Amino acid sequence: MKICLLPGDGIGPEIMAEAVRVLRALDLDCTMEEALLGGGAVDATGDPYPEATQRLAQAADAVLLGAVGGPQWDALPRALRPERGLLAIRQQLGLFANLRPAILYPELANASTLKSEVVAGLDILIVRELTGDIYFGQPRGIETRDVDGRQERFGFNTMHYSESEIRRILRVAFEAARKRSGRLCSVDKMNVLETTQLWRDVAIETAADYPDVVLSHMLVDNAAMQLVRNPKQFDVIVTGNMFGDILSDEAAMLTGSIGMLPSASLDANNKGMYEPCHGSAPDIAGQGIANPLATILSAAMMLRYTFARHDAAQRIENAVKKVLGQGYRTADIHEPGMRQVGTREMGDAVLAAL
Amino acid sequence: MKICLLPGDGIGPEIMAEAVRVLRALDLDCTMEEALLGGGAVDATGDPYPEATQRLAQAADAVLLGAVGGPQWDALPRALRPERGLLAIRQQLGLFANLRPAILYPELANASTLKSEVVAGLDILIVRELTGDIYFGQPRGIETRDVDGRQERFGFNTMHYSESEIRRILRVAFEAARKRSGRLCSVDKMNVLETTQLWRDVAIETAADYPDVVLSHMLVDNAAMQLVRNPKQFDVIVTGNMFGDILSDEAAMLTGSIGMLPSASLDANNKGMYEPCHGSAPDIAGQGIANPLATILSAAMMLRYTFARHDAAQRIENAVKKVLGQGYRTADIHEPGMRQVGTREMGDAVLAAL
Ligand SMILES: CC(C)[C@H](C(=O)O)[C@@H](O)C(=O)O
Ligand SMILES: CC(C)[C@H](C(=O)O)[C@@H](O)C(=O)O
Repeated sequence: MKICLLPGDGIGPEIMAEAVRVLRALDLDCTMEEALLGGGAVDATGDPYPEATQRLAQAADAVLLGAVGGPQWDALPRALRPERGLLAIRQQLGLFANLRPAILYPELANASTLKSEVVAGLDILIVRELTGDIYFGQPRGIETRDVDGRQERFGFNTMHYSESEIRRILRVAFEAARKRSGRLCSVDKMNVLETTQLWRDVAIETAADYPDVVLSHMLVDNAAMQLVRNPKQFDVIVTGNMFGDILSDEAAMLTGSIGMLPSASLDANNKGMYEPCHGSAPDIAGQGIANPLATILSAAMMLRYTFARHDAAQRIENAVKKVLGQGYRTADIHEPGMRQVGTREMGDAVLAAL
Repeated sequence: MKICLLPGDGIGPEIMAEAVRVLRALDLDCTMEEALLGGGAVDATGDPYPEATQRLAQAADAVLLGAVGGPQWDALPRALRPERGLLAIRQQLGLFANLRPAILYPELANASTLKSEVVAGLDILIVRELTGDIYFGQPRGIETRDVDGRQERFGFNTMHYSESEIRRILRVAFEAARKRSGRLCSVDKMNVLETTQLWRDVAIETAADYPDVVLSHMLVDNAAMQLVRNPKQFDVIVTGNMFGDILSDEAAMLTGSIGMLPSASLDANNKGMYEPCHGSAPDIAGQGIANPLATILSAAMMLRYTFARHDAAQRIENAVKKVLGQGYRTADIHEPGMRQVGTREMGDAVLAAL
């Protein structure tokens, strides 16, 4: 079990430290090596995804990532921005299947801005395609052209999917739906975009191999509405990279506790990168108050998906449930009557609960 | 005042009838002529935007639209689908500025799935660009190519904006923000899409002409989250066609009463098309139970934006507030203790309140 650790920027190193402590406590016979990604990597090497990191990530079975980015790198040219590192590692490792659960822990039901009857027991899985779509399509750029003697700038990007790219992410989603409720909702904009017309066609074709899964289709604008109106109508949602970026963040926020949500990005052989859904939170970095649970739960996802160590994954997940039950809360999920703790103490509590 | 009426499909004709009664009651010295758009137009003429409708719409000062679409037209080839009519009229008339208010009426605060303290008093204006972006960009399509001896389909679309397209919608948004709170949030995905990097650059340049407006920027995934987390942080939001489609529907649903929300789509000279935010609701069409208030409020927007008849617009808006205060509710916004009425009775109530 070779794990590559990428703490990244902002609160990344703090939350990563706790996940590493949890992994070590499980006595798993794994090796962990650390490397640079994002803003810190730019500062140290001039590259958000340096070669040393590339070698380590390619050689590892799994990558555990903290978070990347921060305002100090916003003014850099596009190619040097921290998120370029993220996009590059996704593409280089072929991590096309992004799994983003949106789960509302009963203990945190109050954290949501939605009425409790609307979100109580919420448990959605968003399956987002991660290496295609308008994120990577060519041609793209900004060009200046002469229009009637005036210079004018034009921006353009290309949305693009092949049927095999669509089919492989649909298969991941059908498999996931089969293991859950047997319901899959595919989200597209087929009434406007030909790319997503093909998406819908391939979804319908792929459904023939999964007679036990009920496939439905929804337009992306309607999906954005239905997530607010009645999120519990969904079980597994599958969609493209761009729509998935928007809908998975919307769904995560329905829980009100985005500091709790892990994610997995998998290749075709269950190699994966695991990271919290939240960002690098530069405003609270270095204060020891960030919530490490999403990173700890990302480590659990890693044990489950890449290493098939369901026992160890379950132990971590149970420990997290237990500390919530015991009333431990970091600032982001704190409520009156609960016990507010910092990053390290939350890690201690999880270790104790293991 | 020449008004072109396009009742459209589903509940369109029913809700349009009530808006027309309200307009007539105002004694405005206007002419109203009706034409076909959408599914009904396809059935009658084979074209979702027939030539007779084009002539009428081009000659009119304003268009009032009910809604288009329905399941019976879903299997038609793309070019014949009802929504093609909608896209064609937007483009032909140059209706680039789509204004979508998301307002929560105090009387309907319970209708929202969000906690009342999160949405009470909500009043956001989304300004969506409507004639550019990936909706209309070329090249686009689905192609079959030979890949290593296999036939494979590829889907592609082009996101595209010129700086002048961006500037003119930004100006509309800055003007709107100036008349409201003086705060404008521009939404893009500049960390991934060059097109929206240009969007952000032009937004910053345009801001120089509006020193009294505070411009902020937000990434689209974050905007989808922030609308759920704390929607009242926003006043005016401006964004492109695709992101605007998603975010405006999400914002509308925050109110829980989408049957109340009008919209305007304007050209450069305040010619406009006005329509409710909701769809054609084929499931309840013909039953006389649809909510006509969004269409009636769309007529008010028409009087305000195209005809500068603020007095008459205000009279309609006041009448709608009054009937809500009197407890009149159509089924979609009904609550115990209120007076449930049908489409026609709601129209009667508004007429009485005028
Ligand atoms: C940082 C950014 C490039 C990234 C994305 O858009 O994919 C992020 O928003 C995410 O969802 O992981
Ligand atoms: C029907 C469809 C083409 C249309 C759009 O995507 O613009 C609709 O969703 C809207 O928002 O008016």
